[in-house]
Amino acid sequence: MRVIVDVMSGDNAPGEMLKGAVEAAAELNASFILVGNEQEINTLAVENGYDLRRFDIIHTDTVLTMEDDPLSVVRAKKDSSMGIGLRLLSEGRGDAFVSAGNTGALFTGASLIVRRIRGVRRAAIGTLLPTTTPCLLLDSGANVSVSPEDLTEFAVMGTAYMKKVGGVEDPTVGLLNNGVEEHKGTPLQIEANVLLGQTPGIHYVGNVEGNAAAFGACQVLVTDGFTGNIFLKSGEGIGKLLLHAIKDAFLKNAVTKLSALLVRRSMAELKRTFDPAEHGGAPFLGISKPVIKAHGSSDARAFKNAIFAAVAYAESDVIYDIATATEQHRNALNELQNAPQRDEKTEDTTAKEKQEGTT
Amino acid sequence: MRVIVDVMSGDNAPGEMLKGAVEAAAELNASFILVGNEQEINTLAVENGYDLRRFDIIHTDTVLTMEDDPLSVVRAKKDSSMGIGLRLLSEGRGDAFVSAGNTGALFTGASLIVRRIRGVRRAAIGTLLPTTTPCLLLDSGANVSVSPEDLTEFAVMGTAYMKKVGGVEDPTVGLLNNGVEEHKGTPLQIEANVLLGQTPGIHYVGNVEGNAAAFGACQVLVTDGFTGNIFLKSGEGIGKLLLHAIKDAFLKNAVTKLSALLVRRSMAELKRTFDPAEHGGAPFLGISKPVIKAHGSSDARAFKNAIFAAVAYAESDVIYDIATATEQHRNALNELQNAPQRDEKTEDTTAKEKQEGTT
Repeated sequence: MRVIVDVMSGDNAPGEMLKGAVEAAAELNASFILVGNEQEINTLAVENGYDLRRFDIIHTDTVLTMEDDPLSVVRAKKDSSMGIGLRLLSEGRGDAFVSAGNTGALFTGASLIVRRIRGVRRAAIGTLLPTTTPCLLLDSGANVSVSPEDLTEFAVMGTAYMKKVGGVEDPTVGLLNNGVEEHKGTPLQIEANVLLGQTPGIHYVGNVEGNAAAFGACQVLVTDGFTGNIFLKSGEGIGKLLLHAIKDAFLKNAVTKLSALLVRRSMAELKRTFDPAEHGGAPFLGISKPVIKAHGSSDARAFKNAIFAAVAYAESDVIYDIATATEQHRNALNELQNAPQRDEKTEDTTAKEKQEGTT
Repeated sequence: MRVIVDVMSGDNAPGEMLKGAVEAAAELNASFILVGNEQEINTLAVENGYDLRRFDIIHTDTVLTMEDDPLSVVRAKKDSSMGIGLRLLSEGRGDAFVSAGNTGALFTGASLIVRRIRGVRRAAIGTLLPTTTPCLLLDSGANVSVSPEDLTEFAVMGTAYMKKVGGVEDPTVGLLNNGVEEHKGTPLQIEANVLLGQTPGIHYVGNVEGNAAAFGACQVLVTDGFTGNIFLKSGEGIGKLLLHAIKDAFLKNAVTKLSALLVRRSMAELKRTFDPAEHGGAPFLGISKPVIKAHGSSDARAFKNAIFAAVAYAESDVIYDIATATEQHRNALNELQNAPQRDEKTEDTTAKEKQEGTT
C-alpha cells in the first residue's frame, strides 16, 4: 500500500498535514509519497523530530488555493501539489491520493486526470453523516445539476460502497425529498423516485425527508450536489450553533461550571460524534482510483483519519465492485428504457408530472 | 381585533388548540371565532372549566386531514374547519386566521379563497429561524419551483416583514446557495443573484451558505420552496439528534445525572431557543389578509404563540407595506427588463451562465 499525500493544501497546510501523515505512518503498514515543498517539509521534520525515512518527497513550489478556478488543476496549476499528486495516482505510482484542498479542483482533477470508471456517467462525492446509523450522502456537492438516471447510478455506487467499506449487508437507499409522497419534489425527484423503484440491485425505500435522514431512515441518501450541499451545511450550522449554546449554558455561573466539569468526558465524546474530522475523508465514488477529500479545515487528527479512510478504500477493492455494479445497472437501464410498453408509460407519466411539479 | 381559529386541525386537535386559544384570550385584547365541532368544543370546555363567553363558535363536522389533497380545501372539504375559517377571513368576519392543519391545503386555500395581494406573483411561507440574530427564511415549502423574479419578490416581502414585524431597521437579504461566489448554484441561483443585486429597496448581501445562515449572515434568506424545506428539515433533524445525544450524555451515570440537575435551567432555556413552538406560527407573505400556519405538532403553548403571531401580524398592518413595496418592485423590474442596454447584457450573461451551471 502506497499513499500519495498532498501536504500543501488545506487551511492548516503544511504543518498539520505533515503531522497527520507522520502519525498515520506510525500506525499503518504503508509507504508514503509526500507532494509539496521539500524544504518546508524538511524544516518541519527537523523542528518536530519527524523521521521521514519512510517517505518519498516529490517537490513542488506551486500550491492550488481555495480561490483558484477548478480547471486550473489541469491548466495553470497543473504542477501544484494537487495536480502532481493526481498525476502520480493516474500513473500507478501510488494506490490512493489524499488532499484537503479545493474540492472543485480536486473533483475536476480526479475526473480529468485519474478519470472515471469506464462507462460511469458522473462521479459523486460521498459523505458519511453523523447519524444514528451510518448513512452515506451522495452527491455532496460535485454535480450541481443531475438527471434522474444519474441519481440511480449514485444509488448503485453508494450501495456498493456501504456493502464493502461500511460493512452493511443490504443498505437501504432513500431519495432526499420535501415529503414522502410520490408527487413530492421537483420534476427531478418525481422522475427519479419512479426510476429508483425500478432499479435492480438496490434496496430502495422511497423518498426521505431531511429530518428523517438523521434517524436511520436509510443508509444511502441520494440527491443532486446543490441540494446535498444545502443539506450538509444546514446541519453543520445548526450543530455548531447548538454546541456553542451548550458551552454558553455551562459557562453561566459557578454551579454550571462545576456541572461542566462533571460531564466533560461525555461532552467530548458527543463533540467527537458530530465532528466531521472523526469520520475521515470523503471518497469520490465513480473515479477509477481512490481519491479522498479531507475537510479543508483538517487538523493533524482529521487528516490522519482521512489517510486511514483512503487506505481502507484502496484495500477494500470496492472500485471493482462499483465498476461491476454500474455496468449491470447500465444494462438494466437500457433494457428498461428500450422496453416499448414501459417506455410509453414512462413518457406519459413524465409529461404529466412535469406539469404538476411546476405549478 | 378578531381572530379566527381552526380548532380541528393539527396532531393534537381539538384539545390543545382550544386550550391554546383560551390561554391566548386571557392575555390578549381580542375576540375569537372558533371553527370546529361545537359539541366537542363544549364538552372540552366543561371538562376543563373554560369560560367560552368571549368565543363565537361556528360549527362544522368536517375536518381536512394531512392526507387530504391540497385542492380539497376548495372542493370536497370546503366545509372543513379550515375551509370555513378561510372563507370567514375573506368575508371580513375576522382580522386573522390561524390553523395547524395541512400546509399545502392552507396555502392553496389562502391563495384561492383569501387571495393574494393584487399583483403579487407568488405568496411564500416565512419561517423565523432560531439563529443568533433573527432571520426569516422564505419560501419554506409552498412553491417547489420558482423563477429568479419570484425570489426578488420574496426578498421585497421579507424585507417589509422584518422591518415592520421584526423591528429590524435595514434587514440584510441573502440568497441561499452552495457557495458565496457569483458562479455558484443552478441557473436559478446564478440569475437570481444578479437580479437581487439590481433590486432597489432591499439590502442585498449576496449568496449565503447554509452554515453561515445560522450565524447572522442575513436577516432575510430567500430560496425556492424545495430547497427551503430541505434546509429547515436538515437543521431540525440534526438539532433533535444533538439534543437526544446530550440527554444520553447526562443520563450516563450518577455523576453526570448530578451534573444534569445543576445545569437543568440552562438546558431548558436552550431547548426553548431551538423549539419551533416558541417562535409562533409561520406567516403566509403575499396573501391579502393574515393567515398564520402553526406547526402541525403544536401543543397549547405553541398554538398560543401562533395566535400571538397572528395578532402581531394583523396589528402591524404590514400587508399594506408589502402591497406598496411589491408594486414599486414590479415597476422597477419592468423598467429593468425593458431597458434595452441592460436587457442585452442580461440575456448574454444568462445564456453563458446557464451553460456553466449545468456542467
